[in-house]
Amino acid sequence: MKNFISTENITHDELEKLFRLADDIKSNKKKYADVLKGYVIATLFYEPSTRTRLSFESSIQRLGAGLISTENAKENASAKKGESLEDTIRIIQGYADMIVLRHFENDSSERAVRVATVPIINAGAGGGEHPTQGLLDIYTIREYKGKVDGTSVAIMGDLKYGRTAHSMIKLLSLYKDITVYGFSVKGLELPQKYKDFLKEREVKYIECKSFNDIPSDVDFIYQTRVQTERLEDKNMKIEELIINKDNFARFSKHTYLLHPLPRVDEISTDLDDDERSIYFKQAHNGIPTRMALIYSIMEDFYGVK
Amino acid sequence: MKNFISTENITHDELEKLFRLADDIKSNKKKYADVLKGYVIATLFYEPSTRTRLSFESSIQRLGAGLISTENAKENASAKKGESLEDTIRIIQGYADMIVLRHFENDSSERAVRVATVPIINAGAGGGEHPTQGLLDIYTIREYKGKVDGTSVAIMGDLKYGRTAHSMIKLLSLYKDITVYGFSVKGLELPQKYKDFLKEREVKYIECKSFNDIPSDVDFIYQTRVQTERLEDKNMKIEELIINKDNFARFSKHTYLLHPLPRVDEISTDLDDDERSIYFKQAHNGIPTRMALIYSIMEDFYGVK
Amino acid sequence: MKNFISTENITHDELEKLFRLADDIKSNKKKYADVLKGYVIATLFYEPSTRTRLSFESSIQRLGAGLISTENAKENASAKKGESLEDTIRIIQGYADMIVLRHFENDSSERAVRVATVPIINAGAGGGEHPTQGLLDIYTIREYKGKVDGTSVAIMGDLKYGRTAHSMIKLLSLYKDITVYGFSVKGLELPQKYKDFLKEREVKYIECKSFNDIPSDVDFIYQTRVQTERLEDKNMKIEELIINKDNFARFSKHTYLLHPLPRVDEISTDLDDDERSIYFKQAHNGIPTRMALIYSIMEDFYGVK
Repeated sequence: MKNFISTENITHDELEKLFRLADDIKSNKKKYADVLKGYVIATLFYEPSTRTRLSFESSIQRLGAGLISTENAKENASAKKGESLEDTIRIIQGYADMIVLRHFENDSSERAVRVATVPIINAGAGGGEHPTQGLLDIYTIREYKGKVDGTSVAIMGDLKYGRTAHSMIKLLSLYKDITVYGFSVKGLELPQKYKDFLKEREVKYIECKSFNDIPSDVDFIYQTRVQTERLEDKNMKIEELIINKDNFARFSKHTYLLHPLPRVDEISTDLDDDERSIYFKQAHNGIPTRMALIYSIMEDFYGVK
Repeated sequence: MKNFISTENITHDELEKLFRLADDIKSNKKKYADVLKGYVIATLFYEPSTRTRLSFESSIQRLGAGLISTENAKENASAKKGESLEDTIRIIQGYADMIVLRHFENDSSERAVRVATVPIINAGAGGGEHPTQGLLDIYTIREYKGKVDGTSVAIMGDLKYGRTAHSMIKLLSLYKDITVYGFSVKGLELPQKYKDFLKEREVKYIECKSFNDIPSDVDFIYQTRVQTERLEDKNMKIEELIINKDNFARFSKHTYLLHPLPRVDEISTDLDDDERSIYFKQAHNGIPTRMALIYSIMEDFYGVK
Repeated sequence: MKNFISTENITHDELEKLFRLADDIKSNKKKYADVLKGYVIATLFYEPSTRTRLSFESSIQRLGAGLISTENAKENASAKKGESLEDTIRIIQGYADMIVLRHFENDSSERAVRVATVPIINAGAGGGEHPTQGLLDIYTIREYKGKVDGTSVAIMGDLKYGRTAHSMIKLLSLYKDITVYGFSVKGLELPQKYKDFLKEREVKYIECKSFNDIPSDVDFIYQTRVQTERLEDKNMKIEELIINKDNFARFSKHTYLLHPLPRVDEISTDLDDDERSIYFKQAHNGIPTRMALIYSIMEDFYGVK
C-alpha cells in the first residue's frame, strides 16, 4: 500500500493487519516513539479541521517524525495566486516524505496521487471519502465486540450526506455476517447505490421506520449529526433523531453508542457518563489507527525497519 | 499539582519550589532537553496570542515533548459546528498528555478541568486569570531583587481591567512584608475586592494621586497598557501614565521597570537601553518558568523521572 | 556570517562554501538529522507564504532543531495591539535561537537585525529582497551545468517587479563570464539600476525584443510570473511571454527551464514531463540550501560542532 485515499482500496486482510499493528501500538507506545526519526510528514489542509489535523499531527509525532503543517492552505498565498493542487503537491513532496491531504473537492486525493512521488493519505475530501474515520470506527467496533464478523450496527441521522457512515459501512462489508439497520427522516435516507453495494457484498440492510424499530440488542448505534439546512421539510421535527437517557434505556448493556463527532444535540450529554457511550474513546482510537496506517505505508514505501 | 488554572491555587512553598526548578533549568538547559520525550502537549488557543503561544511552544519543545497546536480554535470547524468546549477537551485529551488552554471566557479553565483527565494549564481566560504571566512576573522580581520578601512594587496604568496586574499582586501576597503602590487615572483604579484581598493578606496598599507620589526608591514599577476605549472620560489625558527618560530619571538605580507587554506608547523607547528596563528579560523568563511548571506537573501526574 | 538578509552581503567564496555544504547535506541526509538538537528556531511570518514557510520548517526539523511558528503574525494579537516589529523581535529572541522573518516591508530585515541578539534570516521582505530564493536558484544552475562560471541565463516575464530575478542575477554576478538575456514586455523591463549593476560586475546583459531573440543554446531560461494588474497597457497581449511545448522545441537539449513558482499559465503544463523542465527540482533545492544556510550560521554563532 503506497497511498490510502479510499475505503475501497483496502482488503479484509490488509485491514486486519493494520488493526493488529494498532493493537501493538496501543499497548507498546514507547516501542514506536522513534521509528520514523529523520522523516518529515506534511499535513496539507485546505480547510480547517482541528480534530482530524491534531489527531494526525499527534500520530506523526508519536512516531518520531518531523511535521510541517498548514491548516488553511486555501487562504494562503500560492493557492490564491492560482497555483493548482497538482503543482502544490509536486512542490511539497520535495519538503516532506508523505502528505496528509484535506481538501474541499471530492476528487482531490485522486488528483494528488496522479502526480505524487511520495505517499498520500486522504484526510477528508469534500463530500466524498474520509477513509481514516472509517478505520477508527471499525477498529472501535472490533475492540468493543472483540471481533467484527457477526456485528449488527444501526446507523442513524443523516444517511444521505453523512460521509462517515458511508465509509464505515463500506469497510464493514469486508467482514462476514453483518447486519446494518438504517434509521433516518424523509429525504435523508441511505442512497440506493449504498443499498445496492451492501446487497452485493451480502450485508443485510434493514430500514427502520422509527427509532423503536431498532432492536434493543443491536451491537452498536452509530449516531450522526443532521444539518438542519439539509432537511427537505424545514418544519420536520428531528426530535426523534435525538438519543437521550430515556430512549436509550431500553437497549442492552452491550449496545454501544458511537458518533464520529463533533456532536451538537443529537446525543444528550446526560448519556456521557453511561459506560456504553464510547464516542470519545472512538475519537481517541484515531491515534493508534492513524499511527498504524502511517507507519505501515512508510515501512512499505521507504523500507523503514 | 495536576492543573494550574489560577494564581489562587498555589502556595508560597509550591511557588518557591517552582522557581528553584526554573533556576536550575536556566543554568542547565541541556539537562532538560529530553525529559518529556515521548509525550505530546497541545496548545489549544481560541484566540490568537502569538507571544504567549510561542513562549509555551518553545518551552514544550525545550523539554523534548511533541507539540500539537491550534492558534485560532474559535474559527475552526468543530467550534463553528457548535461543539462545546467540554467536548473539545474530551477529544483532545486523547491526542495529548497535557492541554494548554487559551480561551475568551473567564470560566473556561474551570470548565475544562471539570471534564479533563489530563492536566490543564490556563494560558489566559477572557478578562479573568492569566496565571503563568503572574509566575514570570514574580520570578523576575525574585531574580532582580534576590528575594521577594520585603519588595515594594508600584503598579500603574489600567488597574481595573489589567488582569496581569491582578495575577501579579495575588502571587506577591504570598510573601512577607510587601508594599504595593497603585497609580491610575479616574475610572481605572484598582477594584475594591483587590484592595480587600491585599488588606486581608497584610500587604500594604498605597494609592498614589500622581506619578510623583511613587517613591523614588521603589523596587519595581509595573507599567501596564491603557486601552483608550476603556477611559470613562474620552478627553482624559493619559500622558501622565507614560514613562519616559525624563520622568524616570528621579528613580533609584535599583528601581526596575517591568511591563507584561505588548507595549505601545506607555514606556518610551528612549528607555529601552536603560539597564533598569527589564521588560524584555521579564518576557524571556516565560521560558524557564513555563518549562518548570510544565515539567513539574508532568512529573507529578505521569511519574516522569 | 551572523545574518542572511541580502544577496549583497555574501561573497563568492562564502557562497561556494555554502553550496558544498548543501551538496554534502543532499548526499548524507542522516548525518545532519541531530546537529541542531536542543536549539529552537522561530519562523515569524507576517504574511502567509506556504511554500517558503514549509521549506524552512522542513529544513529546521531535518537539522533536529525545535520549531515555533506563526504563519500570519500581522493578524495576530500583539501586532494588532500596536506592537512594533522591533519589540516583537526583542521578545521572540528570548524564545528562539534564530528568527526566520517574512515581512511585508522592504526594510524589515534591516530593522530586525538592528535590535536582534540572535541570527536573522530574511525569508522575503515586501517587494525587496528574497535572498534564499536566490541561493536555491544559483545552486540549481550549478547542479545542472556542473559549475556557474560561464553560464548564460535568459530571464523573462516581469523583470521590473520580479524580486526573485533580481536576487538571482545579483548572486550570478559573483561568478565569471556570465551572460544574461532579458526578455519582457513594455513597462516591465529590467530597471536601469540592475543594468548598471551588471555592467559594473562585468556581466554581459543583452535585451531581447522577442522570444525568438533568445539563443537556442542558452543554458537556462528563468521564467517568472507576470501579474496582469501591473501591465501598463491593459490590452497588452502577454501570450508571447508564455512558454509551451511548441515554442520551447527549438531549444537545445541542455537548455533547462527554471521558475521560482508558483506558476500560473506562463509555463504550459504540457512541458512538465520534459526533462529540461527542472522547476520542481529547483523548488526542492530549497531544502539542502536552507539547511546549509541555517546550519552554517548556527555553527558560526553558537559554536555548534
